[in-house]
Amino acid sequence: MRTAIVMGSTSDLPKLEPAIEILKEYGVKVDVRCLSAHRAHAGLSEFIKEANQNGTEVIIAAAGMAAALPGVVASQTVLPVIGVPISGSTLDGMDALLSIVQMPPGIPVATVAINGGKNAAHLALQIMAVKHEELREKLLSFRQDMEVSAMKANEEVIAKYQ
Amino acid sequence: MRTAIVMGSTSDLPKLEPAIEILKEYGVKVDVRCLSAHRAHAGLSEFIKEANQNGTEVIIAAAGMAAALPGVVASQTVLPVIGVPISGSTLDGMDALLSIVQMPPGIPVATVAINGGKNAAHLALQIMAVKHEELREKLLSFRQDMEVSAMKANEEVIAKYQ
Amino acid sequence: MRTAIVMGSTSDLPKLEPAIEILKEYGVKVDVRCLSAHRAHAGLSEFIKEANQNGTEVIIAAAGMAAALPGVVASQTVLPVIGVPISGSTLDGMDALLSIVQMPPGIPVATVAINGGKNAAHLALQIMAVKHEELREKLLSFRQDMEVSAMKANEEVIAKYQ
Amino acid sequence: MRTAIVMGSTSDLPKLEPAIEILKEYGVKVDVRCLSAHRAHAGLSEFIKEANQNGTEVIIAAAGMAAALPGVVASQTVLPVIGVPISGSTLDGMDALLSIVQMPPGIPVATVAINGGKNAAHLALQIMAVKHEELREKLLSFRQDMEVSAMKANEEVIAKYQ
Amino acid sequence: MRTAIVMGSTSDLPKLEPAIEILKEYGVKVDVRCLSAHRAHAGLSEFIKEANQNGTEVIIAAAGMAAALPGVVASQTVLPVIGVPISGSTLDGMDALLSIVQMPPGIPVATVAINGGKNAAHLALQIMAVKHEELREKLLSFRQDMEVSAMKANEEVIAKYQ
Amino acid sequence: MRTAIVMGSTSDLPKLEPAIEILKEYGVKVDVRCLSAHRAHAGLSEFIKEANQNGTEVIIAAAGMAAALPGVVASQTVLPVIGVPISGSTLDGMDALLSIVQMPPGIPVATVAINGGKNAAHLALQIMAVKHEELREKLLSFRQDMEVSAMKANEEVIAKYQ
Amino acid sequence: MRTAIVMGSTSDLPKLEPAIEILKEYGVKVDVRCLSAHRAHAGLSEFIKEANQNGTEVIIAAAGMAAALPGVVASQTVLPVIGVPISGSTLDGMDALLSIVQMPPGIPVATVAINGGKNAAHLALQIMAVKHEELREKLLSFRQDMEVSAMKANEEVIAKYQ
Amino acid sequence: MRTAIVMGSTSDLPKLEPAIEILKEYGVKVDVRCLSAHRAHAGLSEFIKEANQNGTEVIIAAAGMAAALPGVVASQTVLPVIGVPISGSTLDGMDALLSIVQMPPGIPVATVAINGGKNAAHLALQIMAVKHEELREKLLSFRQDMEVSAMKANEEVIAKYQ
Repeated sequence: MRTAIVMGSTSDLPKLEPAIEILKEYGVKVDVRCLSAHRAHAGLSEFIKEANQNGTEVIIAAAGMAAALPGVVASQTVLPVIGVPISGSTLDGMDALLSIVQMPPGIPVATVAINGGKNAAHLALQIMAVKHEELREKLLSFRQDMEVSAMKANEEVIAKYQ
Repeated sequence: MRTAIVMGSTSDLPKLEPAIEILKEYGVKVDVRCLSAHRAHAGLSEFIKEANQNGTEVIIAAAGMAAALPGVVASQTVLPVIGVPISGSTLDGMDALLSIVQMPPGIPVATVAINGGKNAAHLALQIMAVKHEELREKLLSFRQDMEVSAMKANEEVIAKYQ
Repeated sequence: MRTAIVMGSTSDLPKLEPAIEILKEYGVKVDVRCLSAHRAHAGLSEFIKEANQNGTEVIIAAAGMAAALPGVVASQTVLPVIGVPISGSTLDGMDALLSIVQMPPGIPVATVAINGGKNAAHLALQIMAVKHEELREKLLSFRQDMEVSAMKANEEVIAKYQ
Repeated sequence: MRTAIVMGSTSDLPKLEPAIEILKEYGVKVDVRCLSAHRAHAGLSEFIKEANQNGTEVIIAAAGMAAALPGVVASQTVLPVIGVPISGSTLDGMDALLSIVQMPPGIPVATVAINGGKNAAHLALQIMAVKHEELREKLLSFRQDMEVSAMKANEEVIAKYQ
Repeated sequence: MRTAIVMGSTSDLPKLEPAIEILKEYGVKVDVRCLSAHRAHAGLSEFIKEANQNGTEVIIAAAGMAAALPGVVASQTVLPVIGVPISGSTLDGMDALLSIVQMPPGIPVATVAINGGKNAAHLALQIMAVKHEELREKLLSFRQDMEVSAMKANEEVIAKYQ
Repeated sequence: MRTAIVMGSTSDLPKLEPAIEILKEYGVKVDVRCLSAHRAHAGLSEFIKEANQNGTEVIIAAAGMAAALPGVVASQTVLPVIGVPISGSTLDGMDALLSIVQMPPGIPVATVAINGGKNAAHLALQIMAVKHEELREKLLSFRQDMEVSAMKANEEVIAKYQ
Repeated sequence: MRTAIVMGSTSDLPKLEPAIEILKEYGVKVDVRCLSAHRAHAGLSEFIKEANQNGTEVIIAAAGMAAALPGVVASQTVLPVIGVPISGSTLDGMDALLSIVQMPPGIPVATVAINGGKNAAHLALQIMAVKHEELREKLLSFRQDMEVSAMKANEEVIAKYQ
Repeated sequence: MRTAIVMGSTSDLPKLEPAIEILKEYGVKVDVRCLSAHRAHAGLSEFIKEANQNGTEVIIAAAGMAAALPGVVASQTVLPVIGVPISGSTLDGMDALLSIVQMPPGIPVATVAINGGKNAAHLALQIMAVKHEELREKLLSFRQDMEVSAMKANEEVIAKYQ
């Protein structure tokens, strides 16, 4: 299993590190790249070409402001592209969200929440799990753990306010 | 290949019919359901349980206003869930977009554009193509056709304004 | 008199503690729970089932981002459900507000201000006072006290700027 | 059981007629008034005073634009006040929504969706059902009917797209 | 010359102190009050009644969130009412702005910028100057001073970047 | 009594005709001008200079989109300037509202609702009434009439729904 | 003088035809293209390469929704790129505006109003006039004509309301 | 080559200093001015008149809030005017953006991102490069450097996460 994470600027890294960690925990090979759609046009195209051929299964693309990166990636591949809007400007990520989610017909970007690096990783895993059965089991187990710890938090809250 | 499309209200159907058509064109079995997260709670849960077991590979969930449906579906499956915000209220779909895309960590929804039924179908196809190689070829061919007809539109514009 | 307060995440607690205090001051038994609509689906349903039967009169549900919790609670009870949008994301609670207030016909959520924990408590009290006459008297007396202290603040302002 | 519906302008009536009908179907006496907070100040105060004494259990207040009406009503009663934002201006009801929902601590307004007349009625019924057991039964039965017709719509959708 | 400044909460005071100072500099008697439309209803009405009779020429009303105060004041007087939206909530004053400026026909509120205490004072002075010729002269002189110091700032900028 | 109404474009006229009518009903001389801040710069300055000297007491300035007109007028006079945001673009007047209301300290514009021509007239009348006692009486009488017809509308609503 | 106009979709044409006409009136050669950044990636790059070499002086790029086109063009040229946001979605062009104007440092797009085709043409002319003195004269003359017709509209308004 | 930078307030300077530096690096003479459209009306007009005659090729105008400055400058020149919205108010620059970009037909302002001083400088350079061939070479070289350092950042990211 192989996933690529490409971001528009190194300042987006803190929002993506949780995604890298999650993917690695699940045994996914992660290619991390910093290739702005506007500043590294050729390098980006070359990277997408490689991803199309080296077994990459999902591409996560994160960008802020006029966030063209996810859409530009999506236009050069039929791999699923996950877009992560980053809150880099004064507009709190609303600019990035609309720049990423409002794609025209034919070129979808699977958009997650503003700064939603973790969910980008989980969505990538869920997509790969369509093919990789063993991953599906792991994700079901993650969900069970999540529910267990949610119920534990609930117990603590109950205890505190009884 | 099997995809489910579930919507919150029959009034969402016109925005989803293009999605149904596209998926069928690609030979995907499509289960269409109208199961509001708020009005058909039990029926929805039963449906998701079935989808988890009958070989469904992607679920498309569409809803307007306080669009809880995609998130509620996503919380009961590890299949990829694609959310389609529908512009059903006076707020032009902005309410549905935020209700769908701003999911908490652990439960992602792959959100597409407001009323983006077509792209929901294409994203579903791209996700299934990770597993189904022959689908990938078809999607590459669709992209080439799209580019050809885009270039043809360009020729017409050139001719018109020369 | 019994009220339940359910929140989507323990990080919402600081916004709800004033609500818990106010309700207890008025002699209301308060059941506090942390049960995300997305992460503790089964636990939440079980809790609502209990609330429907144990004499709970009002449910306060608070959540941030794609805040499905209040609507999901409302869909499983005919008790009045009060929704509190929490400002947990970069969008300052506007996402939560729209996710909570824009409910479809048939399943209302009584929405209060962003981070409006105090008013959720007061609204719960006012609702219970429809049945409990003695509570109505206490609320009228609270309003009089509020007016008295408002007029006192006015006196201080007058004194300061005379 | 008695509910008052007060609106800021007769142009709000079409959005409220469904509420009047629903309440009457459930055997609730409905007092309908058109008393703008800004244009009928004295008449409004008098009306609230009456409502506080004549057994009214819930007040529904609807207004558009700078929608002060629900808050002004709420400030003169401890009955639960339900606010309905009306989309009367170019801003599609967003102005009315914020004017109604963002109430200061101590004076809550239970806000429903923009133009959400139906839900205002249902919320009023749910509030009165805290006291009136027989109403609770009727509301549970309404929910069951709603679910039945939702499931029927689902059957039709299934049949259409099979 | 007499102006009243009424605010909804003492927390609005820091935004209004510049207004008080400016008005006093121009020799205007300023009545400062803290009378929430929602929490000090009777006191507010009484105050407006006095203002209508004691020679007050302009009323400045400032409030945050669901800022009903300026409109409620305006509905009880034909004195010009200046509204100052205060940024008291997570919505940065956009809620207060829309609650104040979107008044229905017949009851205007002269709205200034969010937190625009200074301009509320200047607008009050300009309104009073319609009647009081000597004030007009002072305001023209203020404008000249403002222009002089603006041009001086310009000179400094020129010097710095030459 | 003399008021000037200046608009940025003749397409704004329909929103201002009610203002012209109202002012004339009250016996106010109205100078109507169409002088864009951007397209008729010199003509606008000349007009303001005249208004400053010919006894004009209030200037109403209306404009849409990047509505600089009210602020530009305000910068060249100490007469009270009332700004009317016009909904001329796809943004429903939100662009005009922010362009008009968010003035910097020292140069206020008294902003009314989007397309609020009527209230601009009423605000102008209220401002002039500070000086002209007889106008104040007329405005009080208008308010009484407004209240009477509001109460009459209320009676009709009561009759209809009894 | 040569300008290129490139749009993302033929549905954008009606908003751009005024631009084509204006440029031709001024004797500018206009290359019109329909080359979506997402659907005609290679064709677009080729076109920009040509524009960089064939004496094109300004590129106008128009697009709606997640409007990546202007930024993608800007990233492949140092010619001035003018971006025109088109109101093609339910969001009235706000999505396109933010997608175009919020460019990262180093790659500017000169953004004009939503649907601002005419101003895109005028801005292109003003940019070319920096080099082409005779164009500057024509633009000054256009401005004088615009002022003359503005003043004529003013005369008509004066006549009508005198 | 000569460019003017005019701002509405000295508080805008920090956002513009990068622009001044960039322009100077490229050997452009920069005239920096602080001339508010509202507070330094005459000085501003005089400055624009000079700029129209002293060989200035581009004017950069920056302002916050109701940012009339860029439009007012644009209305008095046919030089290209670049507008920079500054985030000076509680509204994060959205007010300034709309006040600057939504210009009426005939008077364009080339708007860049909120606080986009750097891009204002680059856009000015690209505009001047239409005339000054040597500047074009320098800009192409800047772009190459930008791409080189972007690719270097990419290498570092690759190294870090391998």
